[in-house]
Amino acid sequence: MKVVKTIQELKEFVQAAKKAGHRIGLVPTMGFLHEGHLALVQKAREENEAVIMSIFVNPLQFGPDEDFERYPRNLERDEQLAAGAGVDCLFTPDVEEMYPEPSIIAMTVTSRTDKLCGVKRPGHFDGVVTVVTKLFHLAEPDTAYFGLKDAQQFAIIDGLVKSLNFPVKLVGVDTVREEDGLAKSSRNVYLTEEERMKAPHLQQALKLGVQAAAQGEENVQAIVDLTISHLTAYAGAAIDYVELLSYPGLMPLKKAEGKMILAAAVKYSKARLIDNIIFTAGEEG
Amino acid sequence: MKVVKTIQELKEFVQAAKKAGHRIGLVPTMGFLHEGHLALVQKAREENEAVIMSIFVNPLQFGPDEDFERYPRNLERDEQLAAGAGVDCLFTPDVEEMYPEPSIIAMTVTSRTDKLCGVKRPGHFDGVVTVVTKLFHLAEPDTAYFGLKDAQQFAIIDGLVKSLNFPVKLVGVDTVREEDGLAKSSRNVYLTEEERMKAPHLQQALKLGVQAAAQGEENVQAIVDLTISHLTAYAGAAIDYVELLSYPGLMPLKKAEGKMILAAAVKYSKARLIDNIIFTAGEEG
Repeated sequence: MKVVKTIQELKEFVQAAKKAGHRIGLVPTMGFLHEGHLALVQKAREENEAVIMSIFVNPLQFGPDEDFERYPRNLERDEQLAAGAGVDCLFTPDVEEMYPEPSIIAMTVTSRTDKLCGVKRPGHFDGVVTVVTKLFHLAEPDTAYFGLKDAQQFAIIDGLVKSLNFPVKLVGVDTVREEDGLAKSSRNVYLTEEERMKAPHLQQALKLGVQAAAQGEENVQAIVDLTISHLTAYAGAAIDYVELLSYPGLMPLKKAEGKMILAAAVKYSKARLIDNIIFTAGEEG
Repeated sequence: MKVVKTIQELKEFVQAAKKAGHRIGLVPTMGFLHEGHLALVQKAREENEAVIMSIFVNPLQFGPDEDFERYPRNLERDEQLAAGAGVDCLFTPDVEEMYPEPSIIAMTVTSRTDKLCGVKRPGHFDGVVTVVTKLFHLAEPDTAYFGLKDAQQFAIIDGLVKSLNFPVKLVGVDTVREEDGLAKSSRNVYLTEEERMKAPHLQQALKLGVQAAAQGEENVQAIVDLTISHLTAYAGAAIDYVELLSYPGLMPLKKAEGKMILAAAVKYSKARLIDNIIFTAGEEG
């Protein structure tokens, strides 16, 4: 595996891959890798001759009160995991490499942001689409792989690609979970032991809501309330939101039908966790 | 020459060109072609095996009071000229093809717009960078060719490419002029006979200013005033602006030094004309 820190080196890898007729798969990450990331690599590995992973904790997508400085980092371990998973080129730029001078272009997400995590994280998705645009231009992937745990992010990147005609195919990969159902997340390390015990109820609560919809419940508020009740009773965390929306449009629903997302965010003492289930009414959740 | 109206057909051309190892040169235009456009094609022809020209009058870059509806169009003549100049693929999408549904991304130019044409055309360059982004993603050019008559546009597209790391090389091509010095422009057709006689004074006035700088004048206002005096006396048009700025940064100057642009816009009865000279103090204008 080639580890490169500069744009120039990355471009050389990309040029060589293209010249060889290789398909390029890109896995953009913020590092502190877990099995969720490695599942993305595995999928990319199956579909491409050249797999690029980026590790870049993007300051643009963190708010002033968010955890940019203390976001967990472990580049040495990440390099081992990436190499083991079959990454061909690991791109680990520093902030100056990605943002060397003030940008003259601001990218703003004008839809799909006033729901879910977007409400409490103003500007977050503007930072996401900006860095994804830059990474797409640098790595020139045929296909890019993102986890569906960040379902709103996936919906917005899907909209980015369609709105601006990026020549990139997007693949959303199912959330990888611990045995007890907790979604893998770099932020899980912040959980206390007791919180870690209760955290799987986040997924349990969503499953309850989806089951109700599968059994014919069409009342959106009833599904949301069922989820909230379970979280309140068992999750031991403050509820940030529980929402049932269309997917990927993220529009409010009059009744629970079509392709939907039931998503929730909860706050533990030092970690905010998110999870979701994307499903279609009438199909198994 | 292949003429395509759909994104699908354009992508097929691009894929085939890439597969053949051809370099792609893109010449984005709004049509109503003149020798200025054909000079771009000629340059693209010299440097690429595949030359794509787009003709698209982009509604996003016209203000509500501007000339989108009456912008001159003559696709039949354009096709002949493009074919004659050596274009391989002419992309002529309609508005629905380029903007099929509401975009979820807004692109805003945050610098280089509060000068020159940007002042009177709020949002104009936002529309330009949006359509250029889409065209770059669709045509995937190695190199894109733009005329330096639209010097502010070139500076902004240069900033777009650098800010977002587009894998595209930009080439600015010198303004093509009539024998009497008037810059070629699709909007020249709007000039009355008398206005057409006087319009070359736009370039004359700029030349005077640049000559003064070449002869050691460092006072920015003195250079601008010299240009304004000549325009007032001879051009027979209302002066929109005359500005001397750094280039491509388009920053105000304390004194006339370094790489600069002296640019002017004047208004005739039915046509607003622009022209500029990009030069470096101490070098021949």
